[in-house]
Amino acid sequence: MDGILKHIHSTEDIKNLNEKELKQLCKELRRFLLQKVSKTGGHLASNLGIVELTVALEYCFHLPEDKIVWDVGHQAYIHKMLTGRKEGFDHLRQLDGLSGFPKPTESDCDAFAAGHSSTSISAAFGLAKARDLTGGKEHVIAVIGDGSMTGGLAYEALNNVGKEHTRMIVILNDNQMSIDTNVGAISRHLNSLRTSYQYRGWKEAVKQFRDNVPVIGEGTYQVLKNVRDGAKMLLTGGALFEQLGLKYIGPVDGHDLPDLIELFENVKEMNRPVLIHVKTIKGKGYPYAEERPWAYHGVGAFDLKTGQPLSKGGRSWSSVFGDKMVEIGKKNPKVAGITAAMSGGTGFEKFQRAFPKRFFDVAIAEQHGTTFAAGLAKGGVTPVFAVYSSFLQRAYDQIVHDVCMQKLHVVFAIDRAGIVGADGETHQGVFDISFLSHIPNMTVLSPKNAWELEEMLDFAVNEWNGPIAVRYPRGTAETAFAEQKEPITYGKAEVIQKGRDIAVLAEGHMLKPAAEAAERLEAEGYHPVLVNMRFLNPLDTELLKEIAETCAHIVTVEDNLRKGGFGSKVLEYYGDAGIQTDVLNLAFPDKYIEQGTQAQLFERYGLDAAGIYNSIKERLGE
Amino acid sequence: MDGILKHIHSTEDIKNLNEKELKQLCKELRRFLLQKVSKTGGHLASNLGIVELTVALEYCFHLPEDKIVWDVGHQAYIHKMLTGRKEGFDHLRQLDGLSGFPKPTESDCDAFAAGHSSTSISAAFGLAKARDLTGGKEHVIAVIGDGSMTGGLAYEALNNVGKEHTRMIVILNDNQMSIDTNVGAISRHLNSLRTSYQYRGWKEAVKQFRDNVPVIGEGTYQVLKNVRDGAKMLLTGGALFEQLGLKYIGPVDGHDLPDLIELFENVKEMNRPVLIHVKTIKGKGYPYAEERPWAYHGVGAFDLKTGQPLSKGGRSWSSVFGDKMVEIGKKNPKVAGITAAMSGGTGFEKFQRAFPKRFFDVAIAEQHGTTFAAGLAKGGVTPVFAVYSSFLQRAYDQIVHDVCMQKLHVVFAIDRAGIVGADGETHQGVFDISFLSHIPNMTVLSPKNAWELEEMLDFAVNEWNGPIAVRYPRGTAETAFAEQKEPITYGKAEVIQKGRDIAVLAEGHMLKPAAEAAERLEAEGYHPVLVNMRFLNPLDTELLKEIAETCAHIVTVEDNLRKGGFGSKVLEYYGDAGIQTDVLNLAFPDKYIEQGTQAQLFERYGLDAAGIYNSIKERLGE
Repeated sequence: MDGILKHIHSTEDIKNLNEKELKQLCKELRRFLLQKVSKTGGHLASNLGIVELTVALEYCFHLPEDKIVWDVGHQAYIHKMLTGRKEGFDHLRQLDGLSGFPKPTESDCDAFAAGHSSTSISAAFGLAKARDLTGGKEHVIAVIGDGSMTGGLAYEALNNVGKEHTRMIVILNDNQMSIDTNVGAISRHLNSLRTSYQYRGWKEAVKQFRDNVPVIGEGTYQVLKNVRDGAKMLLTGGALFEQLGLKYIGPVDGHDLPDLIELFENVKEMNRPVLIHVKTIKGKGYPYAEERPWAYHGVGAFDLKTGQPLSKGGRSWSSVFGDKMVEIGKKNPKVAGITAAMSGGTGFEKFQRAFPKRFFDVAIAEQHGTTFAAGLAKGGVTPVFAVYSSFLQRAYDQIVHDVCMQKLHVVFAIDRAGIVGADGETHQGVFDISFLSHIPNMTVLSPKNAWELEEMLDFAVNEWNGPIAVRYPRGTAETAFAEQKEPITYGKAEVIQKGRDIAVLAEGHMLKPAAEAAERLEAEGYHPVLVNMRFLNPLDTELLKEIAETCAHIVTVEDNLRKGGFGSKVLEYYGDAGIQTDVLNLAFPDKYIEQGTQAQLFERYGLDAAGIYNSIKERLGE
Repeated sequence: MDGILKHIHSTEDIKNLNEKELKQLCKELRRFLLQKVSKTGGHLASNLGIVELTVALEYCFHLPEDKIVWDVGHQAYIHKMLTGRKEGFDHLRQLDGLSGFPKPTESDCDAFAAGHSSTSISAAFGLAKARDLTGGKEHVIAVIGDGSMTGGLAYEALNNVGKEHTRMIVILNDNQMSIDTNVGAISRHLNSLRTSYQYRGWKEAVKQFRDNVPVIGEGTYQVLKNVRDGAKMLLTGGALFEQLGLKYIGPVDGHDLPDLIELFENVKEMNRPVLIHVKTIKGKGYPYAEERPWAYHGVGAFDLKTGQPLSKGGRSWSSVFGDKMVEIGKKNPKVAGITAAMSGGTGFEKFQRAFPKRFFDVAIAEQHGTTFAAGLAKGGVTPVFAVYSSFLQRAYDQIVHDVCMQKLHVVFAIDRAGIVGADGETHQGVFDISFLSHIPNMTVLSPKNAWELEEMLDFAVNEWNGPIAVRYPRGTAETAFAEQKEPITYGKAEVIQKGRDIAVLAEGHMLKPAAEAAERLEAEGYHPVLVNMRFLNPLDTELLKEIAETCAHIVTVEDNLRKGGFGSKVLEYYGDAGIQTDVLNLAFPDKYIEQGTQAQLFERYGLDAAGIYNSIKERLGE
């Protein structure tokens, strides 16, 4: 570790540094970040871009008294380094290691947990109001990217903050990116601010503000409603935020440390909601990342010199999806693609390039993506919305109210379903079976391998006509069970192996460990039935009935929470049918599942082959 | 029926009317509306306010080819009258009668279903894009209120629409109201537009637009980025919408029929997204409703002459909640109240008046309301968010990601849980047990009567310290079981009657019909156990275990979907515990539940006393 960073154990240690030392610290932080993340993998480009901003914030404000709420949170690595967690970076995002996101249970300097987008202004507003109600004095700061600003939640919060005059600071970290290139009218608006020749610099704006309105109250507020104020907005930019009632300051260079420090010291004095527009460069200081920031957003271990990944995985589920969608798009001109700022992550880029007019990046807006899809479907187009499982949570109401109530033919391609690994609690896609399979008219599918994902997409787009979701996991696509190629039939499971006594019913890629467990049972003289469920909703109840007649024990295995999962739906069927039988549901327990590799977590929660085998044996009393 | 209206059977019939006749038609429509709704109840004030706007739209555009998407949809009565459904108003919102919301299954003139807020721009954008992809020519129009404009979904849609240049029309029906008075920065912005002395009238704005930019393309788009355009915005108002990329036209008087018609004919020619700001008066034409529009938003039958309701129900659950919250607020200074534009409906007004600094109306923004609550809780305040069950669906991700993951002490007071009746499919609160009870760390409670609601609120606020929801139904609070006053203990059910052979486990107010069914069984010689579950999550598993030892049949009864409901969680427990027993779950089936009175729907779905009794007998094979 370098000279200055070595002595930083808390943010108090940076308060005494002079400007030169602070700049040196920034260099050392970047070097440390690159060294560590190149070994462990993690979020890189966003953290490279936020070094000076973080140092300036934590130099000017006092942690943990002052509260910084990091939106999404994958850009909080520098913050973690400055708040006593440098050592943790050797085990970043690993099982029982340092989290890649803010986590109050890890440090009281993490004011609020995050992982999903656009929550910071709401949470910070809550902290600020709680401060005012309990007589506190601390500062509350939300740090939000321009991508997150496209989420409706951020707007709802701004609408509320702008009305209430509460003292708080919103820092808009504008790097013209979400995870993919940022899109939409807000992005264009920010761009116009960045390049505006009306820009006079933040100092003049702050000066003008302080000279004119040293104490802020309802009276000052009225200023917003007259022409003089309108004219001021034109001069300083930020009309959109000013219309929403926040004082706009910016744009300011997010890599000019002394400038940032001077600004923050000034802003401390303001007794109202302020939005500071900070321009940063994603990937700053690492040429490969500056050139291709999207490629260095989230990385595995890589060679620091060449910027190349150290290992290449096999063909991913996302890639299987992406290739198949191009094929489907060629044959079917009515298919359209939708992404919420994730065309890269979901493998949808190829379709986007092949059919740009039929592809829609709606920004980080899963709610809108879903209702927009419903509108497309009502208009005769077949939308495929590729979305990560944990982000689809945000569209629950739209699925219930706009898609399923009207039985519209919207296809949800749910990527990162089940355990995702290193991103941890906030990103585990273990809720989707539970929140989708109780919605009327919704069909939920899960493929055992790459071939089956292709078949299911074909089925969902070209054969079915109603709301339908295909869920598949993160990582390398399964290629096992290459011989099992039973065509997809609505509501029908695929029986992999017939038998009696015990039935093992597996969801999607869990078929593999389930099959291994079944094999061990067979070696012991059992005759297990092995089933690839395929349809999680509706269930193949005919098969379930049959199985209950021949098997004394039924075991379900899924990559989802146990509560409300597919196993639970199996119980519901037997309950309704008045069939009493022994059903053992294997799935994740009733808690948020921590970070770790997928393999580690399956092992820890007894969902690898050995765990499945052991649970069955225990149930058998053996 | 009056002279002109009598002859209107479809919108084609209004095309030949002259101005005088159209104005007469408006009068007749208002009279018809008042006559019908005063008898059946329904949404009144919003429909009185939108008469001229609807007539002008349906005079200028062609239904069903052109698509009008009504946001929320409770203001579509006039539209229904003009599209062949006048006769339906005798059975408005009644079992198997005319829906109070747009419903494509009812008429092809209803382009998209609605019920919840803020969906119209997304849906209309989908219809417009589908039109462009399939070579259609029709117009697509979203009609959205200023209240709905506060929902994040509307903003996500505007952000996307503004980027895409797609031809569509957004009509902002601004009556300065959501269901309660509209709040927030957007509302203030609209107000400034309404009262702006910069207003030059829509004709000049349209003229300027058409003169300068007859053909719209990317080039024109750039105009938005320069000062000239900024200056224009200053003159014409609507900066916020223009910043988002929509052409803003307005404000225009929504009761000036010839002006509206002229405007719509002009706007038809525009080949880009346009937002028309229409000022209307909620309740227009009925003095009582103009004076107190919130009181005539949704009404029961009333006396047309006096404006007074014909019958008064008993004390509502909402009222019990409201009074109790004032009492809790007096004793506990750390309690804060949150509403999403529903302080009247939820009974929260009294608290709002008593503790204005501790009460927050966040506008129609359930997502923000939830994450804001999480922020308050993290800051040491105890927020109680009172929200209708079906609207809480929109905050599913925030509950998972912001509240429960951090185990924050947020209290959800879930009003209108279970069947709500006349509002139908979109408003039935039958999903909340299913989407809440699989979330880790979430406690879900349901009271048997008014006393128990009070006790549970006390428990949730003052004794518990974590995420907790109390769900209670619409309508008159139950007063039965006055003798049963077992204190609330975490995770413990209340045994109302001991017994053997059959156990009936009831959720909340379903205890009453369940008790009646149990009584009938007792009269036949059975010895039913009767349990008030109280805790739907976590379940009283100790009791469940005990019951399984003494009862051969276990019956669960709940006012929720059967899938993923509390009965399903009972099955999960027995499955996990390896207990094989007969469990019968009584709840609503796997479909959207139609409108009707609560009593009618409980009867239709076998959830009244007789239905419960019959289902049990059937299960017993008797």
